[in-house]
Amino acid sequence: MPRYRAIVEYDGTGYFGFQRQRDDQPTVQSRLEDVLTGLAGGEPVRVTGAGRTDSGVHALGQVICFELTWRHREEDLLRAMNANLPDDIAIKALIECSETFHPRFDARRRAYEYHVYNAAVRSPIRRLRSWHVARSLDVERMNEAAACLIGVHDFATFGQPPQGENSVREVFVAEWRREGEMLVFFIEANAFLYRMVRSIVGSLKLVGEGSWTVADFEEAFRACDRARCGTVAPPHGLYLVSVCYED
Amino acid sequence: MPRYRAIVEYDGTGYFGFQRQRDDQPTVQSRLEDVLTGLAGGEPVRVTGAGRTDSGVHALGQVICFELTWRHREEDLLRAMNANLPDDIAIKALIECSETFHPRFDARRRAYEYHVYNAAVRSPIRRLRSWHVARSLDVERMNEAAACLIGVHDFATFGQPPQGENSVREVFVAEWRREGEMLVFFIEANAFLYRMVRSIVGSLKLVGEGSWTVADFEEAFRACDRARCGTVAPPHGLYLVSVCYED
Repeated sequence: MPRYRAIVEYDGTGYFGFQRQRDDQPTVQSRLEDVLTGLAGGEPVRVTGAGRTDSGVHALGQVICFELTWRHREEDLLRAMNANLPDDIAIKALIECSETFHPRFDARRRAYEYHVYNAAVRSPIRRLRSWHVARSLDVERMNEAAACLIGVHDFATFGQPPQGENSVREVFVAEWRREGEMLVFFIEANAFLYRMVRSIVGSLKLVGEGSWTVADFEEAFRACDRARCGTVAPPHGLYLVSVCYED
Repeated sequence: MPRYRAIVEYDGTGYFGFQRQRDDQPTVQSRLEDVLTGLAGGEPVRVTGAGRTDSGVHALGQVICFELTWRHREEDLLRAMNANLPDDIAIKALIECSETFHPRFDARRRAYEYHVYNAAVRSPIRRLRSWHVARSLDVERMNEAAACLIGVHDFATFGQPPQGENSVREVFVAEWRREGEMLVFFIEANAFLYRMVRSIVGSLKLVGEGSWTVADFEEAFRACDRARCGTVAPPHGLYLVSVCYED
């Protein structure tokens, strides 16, 4: 059966994360599978994703894969999926791929962004898409601390590995930039632990507001102890931006 | 009684516009008045706004004015209001003002932005805050057409004056800029007619996609005839950005 690979954007606000849940709560995967099963005339279609985003987390470039008998062009499949998906999920691109392609195992790098709205008063317009932090954050200091994340390290302080694997990951980029009142954290790694980006952002926020020194952050990180993590940032500021493959 | 002037940001998605309606539908003005009436211990407080934004339209810098007996500092009033307002409305700044200040009559300039998401596939993340236009728009051509709006003109094609006044307005700036896949239209005028920005944007979109020439737009504009307006852009892409006063 032909296998397809697609890039998916979604607003995570209304979902219990990407992955299908046993108790039938709405998830992105279940919505995608329902639509594809409909297009397959009722034959169940299974969707695999590159990353299991948490409840409330958004994606600009989640990558999925599925098998489907489709007698028309790729563009028509993309259009048919978008016509049937709800407003808060969209297929941005779609191509046929090799039988062996696996979006999670074949991924070489994942990139996330975290958006912080840093101003004294909360913003109604940005409230669903960013974390409001009222205390002024020192971006330079946060970047100084973030620099120690680069390279191959044990990230146990900042997350749990799925299914007791090891917690060593390689981070390629970890950097804040300011866009007016928005602070955007970009992080790219070979893979991520459960809650890793939100744990790093929550801890870097402590550095930015002066509650932690850069040395406090580094010590917590080197301790490889989940209990040493600072706060965990809320999900609605987090975006899965892209997933990179060999090709 | 002391008089206060404040800047208000709101997400218009859940409201029937700014202005209080007779039938008690939720509006921004009614929410503000309810909160202030609460802070005044039940004494009704009346709020005046600089502009009556339509149902679904957002504001980053609406200006309001009200009278209130308040025995604490201005900062405390701002904080008390924000603590009582719903998530989708916030007071960004607040000062005591002169007895004679009127947010609508004293305003010298108003600025609006209109956000168009111009890409083949709709965007779940941006869907509540911008108009999705799938056909590629020619920004240069739209700017060529928009240039004829600058100056003192009769804008009857693009809107109705409230209460049969004349439809002559002065436009200072009318310009599109591209920010990746977002096209942002900025327009500043002494005042606006009802639906004026959305009518201009809807008509410029026809120019951008090639359905109208620049000359078609200019002719429609010079005709001073509401029936010659192109499409009217939807409300959820429109933002009242700022209101300027003599001071």
